[in-house]
Amino acid sequence: MKTIGYAAHSSESDLAPFAFDRRDPRPNDVAIDILYCGVCHSDLHTARNDWGNAVYPCVPGHEIVGRVTAVGSDVTKFEVGQTVAVGCLVDSCQHCDQCHKDHEQYCREGWTGTYNGADRITGENTMGGYSTHIVVREEFVLSVPDNLDVARVAPLLCAGITTYSPMREWNVGPGSRVAVVGLGGLGHMAVKIAAAMGAHVTVLSRSPGKEKDAIDLGAEAVLISTDEAAMARAASSFDFIIDTVPVYHDLNPYLPLLDTDATLVIVGQVGPLVETHTFPLIFARKRIAGSLIGGLKETQEMLDFCGRMNILPECEMIAMGDINTAYDRMEKSDVRYRFVIDMATMPAAA
Amino acid sequence: MKTIGYAAHSSESDLAPFAFDRRDPRPNDVAIDILYCGVCHSDLHTARNDWGNAVYPCVPGHEIVGRVTAVGSDVTKFEVGQTVAVGCLVDSCQHCDQCHKDHEQYCREGWTGTYNGADRITGENTMGGYSTHIVVREEFVLSVPDNLDVARVAPLLCAGITTYSPMREWNVGPGSRVAVVGLGGLGHMAVKIAAAMGAHVTVLSRSPGKEKDAIDLGAEAVLISTDEAAMARAASSFDFIIDTVPVYHDLNPYLPLLDTDATLVIVGQVGPLVETHTFPLIFARKRIAGSLIGGLKETQEMLDFCGRMNILPECEMIAMGDINTAYDRMEKSDVRYRFVIDMATMPAAA
Repeated sequence: MKTIGYAAHSSESDLAPFAFDRRDPRPNDVAIDILYCGVCHSDLHTARNDWGNAVYPCVPGHEIVGRVTAVGSDVTKFEVGQTVAVGCLVDSCQHCDQCHKDHEQYCREGWTGTYNGADRITGENTMGGYSTHIVVREEFVLSVPDNLDVARVAPLLCAGITTYSPMREWNVGPGSRVAVVGLGGLGHMAVKIAAAMGAHVTVLSRSPGKEKDAIDLGAEAVLISTDEAAMARAASSFDFIIDTVPVYHDLNPYLPLLDTDATLVIVGQVGPLVETHTFPLIFARKRIAGSLIGGLKETQEMLDFCGRMNILPECEMIAMGDINTAYDRMEKSDVRYRFVIDMATMPAAA
Repeated sequence: MKTIGYAAHSSESDLAPFAFDRRDPRPNDVAIDILYCGVCHSDLHTARNDWGNAVYPCVPGHEIVGRVTAVGSDVTKFEVGQTVAVGCLVDSCQHCDQCHKDHEQYCREGWTGTYNGADRITGENTMGGYSTHIVVREEFVLSVPDNLDVARVAPLLCAGITTYSPMREWNVGPGSRVAVVGLGGLGHMAVKIAAAMGAHVTVLSRSPGKEKDAIDLGAEAVLISTDEAAMARAASSFDFIIDTVPVYHDLNPYLPLLDTDATLVIVGQVGPLVETHTFPLIFARKRIAGSLIGGLKETQEMLDFCGRMNILPECEMIAMGDINTAYDRMEKSDVRYRFVIDMATMPAAA
């Protein structure tokens, strides 16, 4: 299937139009016309080889929404014309204990990324959602609730599930006292989802000025982390902290805010943390954990939850040709709160 | 009640004989003749004011075993002649949510330490177990199972409960794959208790030479943390790691050893950790936590468990007058595995 995408050809090059072929659907495949694709920080990290594992040409994009154009002969869950989504994973071993627990994101053999992954059959580099079409095995395709505005669904597939999954794992619900650190693509989804779950949500911010945005998104309070008196008053006052900060940072100001036996979950930064002091961990059995996106079953649950609660990300729609400018802006945190590419703007030929 | 103890009078002074009075028993108090007292690293830290909170004169000691000599009029659980124990706590508020959950060690108002604490009624500095007598409110006195060798019970009151409590909290049981980091006073108890719970226990050691000791204590394997090939083979192979290292150290070699969703619990070092990398936390939802001693109910459960399983620490018995030498040796980790003071060696008068 002839496909046009935007690819990086090296860590230094801008993304540029790139023509390639998608496989013909296998019996268990779903072929999808991509309508929208969200822009995640991981896209930028991979395109620029920040993690040292990029394979070029690299077509990023793992927040994909589209319409089914064909299904393989064994496909039972999807039909032509249906609105569907694809997230960060397009395959996993399907037979390990984690896959059996619907935790494909922790697959023992390693899951296959929607881009920059190795196809489990051909070994070819997978190409992501900055493209006109994609072909994905049925088990990794998701249904999009009819009531949601399809132009804004895409970021749920990474930013949404990345924040939803740990809130489910750590039992956030009505009355939970939740703090969100960092109010970007992930953080703003964390606020919306936690609020929809019935939690009392506080945004932790390093500087004043985010109060209105935080409240508009569903938070009930903003706590300025440089205000020592306010931070001291907030000691032991949260059941759950979700830390979406994407860069090297320091947990020490946040750990005292956790209640006894409560957990701070890191979903943003992959890398070393500032030296963490064990005192709050030991003296109130506090916990630190990480969490990675979510499994397919949980991602569908998240989409259905967002459908019921009518939760959508705040999106800034861009044309495909604006992606390099969008990356520059994203690096400066100049986006409210997620860029989404309208795939109708893809140039007709590369 | 005239009491003789050993006290530090400043951060620089050696411990020396010190005469003082214990309070007359209140209606809910138990008066105890101390038979033995274990020597914990915290004793040394406090005597030398390493944590900056020492009050002098300081009589350390919170691993206490003795015999009841008198009980107040309201005491119902203990009688004269009974063998009892006192651990790290002698009081707490008794009315907060944590106390109601039998987690007095996480009391909202702060628990009262057996030494270097402020008595909740008089405000006086509490004096610990390096002494001939102690008076403690009934709720903080523990029963010692009859079958246990009373000369070796004392270290259970801190080293025992500190390792037992997190193993209970994180559901260590038959078949659990447990690793113990650090084979000192805490670590050797962790090995014994985990093995008695039915776990498969591995000792993690920086250098060879501890195999025989580890196996004798109940471990089934020793993993040398400098052996990169062996460490790589052990990736994702533990359900629970208990980290008893008492000094600044690095968790990064240990986190990959945790299985998905498994936890490393810090019980030794109070202070900053080497910069911790979030990769294993995020990519397999691994967890880090701390844990502090245990509540009274759980400490009694631990003593009863040790009674049933006949678990006792390995002790090196010393005379009271040898305490300063013992501190010097403890600083060099020259003890197998816990010093216990025989209180019969206390000088008759200070």
